[in-house]
Amino acid sequence: MKRRSFIKSLGSSFALASILNIKSSHAEEKTQFKWKMVTSWPKNFPGLGVGAENLANLINILSNNRIKIKVFGSNELIPPLEVFDFVSKGGAELGHSGAYYWKGKSPGCQFFSSVPFGLNAQEMNAWLYYGGGLKLWEKLYGAFNLIPRPAGNTGAQMGGWFNKEIKSLSDLQGLKMRIPGLGGEVLSRAGGVPVTLAGSEIFTALQTGTIDATEWVGPYNDRAFGLYKAAKYYYFPGWHEPGPTIECLINKTAYNTLPQDLQFIVDTACKAINIDMLSDYTAKNNLALQYLKSKNIVIKEFPREIMNKLRYISKQVMKEISTHDSITKEIYVSYNNFQKNVSPWTEISDKSFLNIR
Amino acid sequence: MKRRSFIKSLGSSFALASILNIKSSHAEEKTQFKWKMVTSWPKNFPGLGVGAENLANLINILSNNRIKIKVFGSNELIPPLEVFDFVSKGGAELGHSGAYYWKGKSPGCQFFSSVPFGLNAQEMNAWLYYGGGLKLWEKLYGAFNLIPRPAGNTGAQMGGWFNKEIKSLSDLQGLKMRIPGLGGEVLSRAGGVPVTLAGSEIFTALQTGTIDATEWVGPYNDRAFGLYKAAKYYYFPGWHEPGPTIECLINKTAYNTLPQDLQFIVDTACKAINIDMLSDYTAKNNLALQYLKSKNIVIKEFPREIMNKLRYISKQVMKEISTHDSITKEIYVSYNNFQKNVSPWTEISDKSFLNIR
Repeated sequence: MKRRSFIKSLGSSFALASILNIKSSHAEEKTQFKWKMVTSWPKNFPGLGVGAENLANLINILSNNRIKIKVFGSNELIPPLEVFDFVSKGGAELGHSGAYYWKGKSPGCQFFSSVPFGLNAQEMNAWLYYGGGLKLWEKLYGAFNLIPRPAGNTGAQMGGWFNKEIKSLSDLQGLKMRIPGLGGEVLSRAGGVPVTLAGSEIFTALQTGTIDATEWVGPYNDRAFGLYKAAKYYYFPGWHEPGPTIECLINKTAYNTLPQDLQFIVDTACKAINIDMLSDYTAKNNLALQYLKSKNIVIKEFPREIMNKLRYISKQVMKEISTHDSITKEIYVSYNNFQKNVSPWTEISDKSFLNIR
Repeated sequence: MKRRSFIKSLGSSFALASILNIKSSHAEEKTQFKWKMVTSWPKNFPGLGVGAENLANLINILSNNRIKIKVFGSNELIPPLEVFDFVSKGGAELGHSGAYYWKGKSPGCQFFSSVPFGLNAQEMNAWLYYGGGLKLWEKLYGAFNLIPRPAGNTGAQMGGWFNKEIKSLSDLQGLKMRIPGLGGEVLSRAGGVPVTLAGSEIFTALQTGTIDATEWVGPYNDRAFGLYKAAKYYYFPGWHEPGPTIECLINKTAYNTLPQDLQFIVDTACKAINIDMLSDYTAKNNLALQYLKSKNIVIKEFPREIMNKLRYISKQVMKEISTHDSITKEIYVSYNNFQKNVSPWTEISDKSFLNIR
């Protein structure tokens, strides 16, 4: 299923049987690099976990099995939030995760996943590949013996599930919401109470009233968690995560042992999975949205007053964290300049088009 | 410069010198496949032509030069609009072009570049990779001994350059505009006079008043053509081309001679260049837009009345061409269903987010 959908997504027209037993002029070559990939997602979790498997399979195939990668779901080898340290120390050669988990290393990490009211997926890729973003990311992670590569994107997320209607800022006062990272910090300053919970704990906490609200990802992943059974109001847009990049972490020492064609194969596979995962989410979110609409829920847009307030707070928060260390400052300046420049173009291209389509 | 920017875009940290002289454990292997790539773009034309070079270089590097591709700009080997036939017959193994040029083969081709009021770039990729689009494209091109792969995207284009303000539908009456393909057909039914001109002829025609208006691509390419010197009004959005996919055409016979790892290398390189070119355009369009704003031009949004009329006509035109042949019908149904399903998701994700950012 996973392998089949991967091959289908590559658009190849070979028969499945022939893929599973690749015979080529190089089939006699021995595997030279047996690598591990640790991830922050449950094995084969829709979108994220499948993306990790696809990345590993793609590197295997492109390298004609000269690199052979074994993927570990969260908690199979290490807990989900130890991916960074584990790959940094060489426990695994590869990791698949999200950069905002590593804000403890430097607040600057968060700019490489998603920033409240920041860049969307298309703009993020433009900043990373052609706006200097990836270079700064390499500088940041280089200090930890890591090389980062964009390797997936969920696209714009949803604002989350709420057990009551959110009509004005007063409805946020004391609201207990599962929302980690920068979004949580912003909510807190608007009067809410951010709560940190692992994905597996969300459903029960919401259903029992331990929390009043939660964000997760979007229809595709939210449906899988059954969140529509625990709260009635589903709000958009996902102001806090408008196009999160998913990362591949590569142990630098291991990368440097590869011949250059294999280094390019790793880099290029990440790039292909970056667009592939976003396409997967875009195609699946709408089907899941249709399903959710058939349930007893209310899908609503956040009131403009709330968006204006949260935007204002977000800009303050980003400015504050930029003073933490010099690399964060450098990343902040680059990201902000890029957003300032790209926004007028997005205004008259994608935004204008979507508003008249 | 071209090679340097390609390498930079891959985000690799090797020194340029070492790239130009790749040494690896496989460096002793001989080139097995000397391939030609013909394109519809001038050699190294910003965005499109650079994308073709990047694609060829990437395949060379990933295959460790087992495939070695020589790229030909338009008119170097054949005229730009003979790419399809030339690759189909095996004159070259690869082509880099746009599917709407081949509407003479079947009107269905046009769905694989861009459709007026159709899918944007992110939605297009979702349809192609995960919505059945690429499978239909393979079916369509298969009859011509060709395999298609998405291999670039310009992102949303601009509405074009006009020598007068466009205030209402009456301003379109008799308006001579260079706008090919489906956009031209729609304009014609709204009272305009579509004109077909090669890119190289546009500037003079606009400056001398032979035409009243022209569309081209967007700020990045339009600036290179100096169009801002020939007309004052620059309109958005590009309703006729909201996210054109650029294609790689592969001669099927040649593809089938490749071992499977090299087939995957060709496929994956196309996928990586698909996101790479869109990132390039997104990063460069805004810089070019800033430049254009410093010139004596007026950047304006089309009046809603005109958009409503052109949208209505576009739906009619698409429906009409769908009856031309059975494969076009099949493509039309798939594309339309996908758009109908994905639009509600884009509404509450990217569109909603861009409207509150």
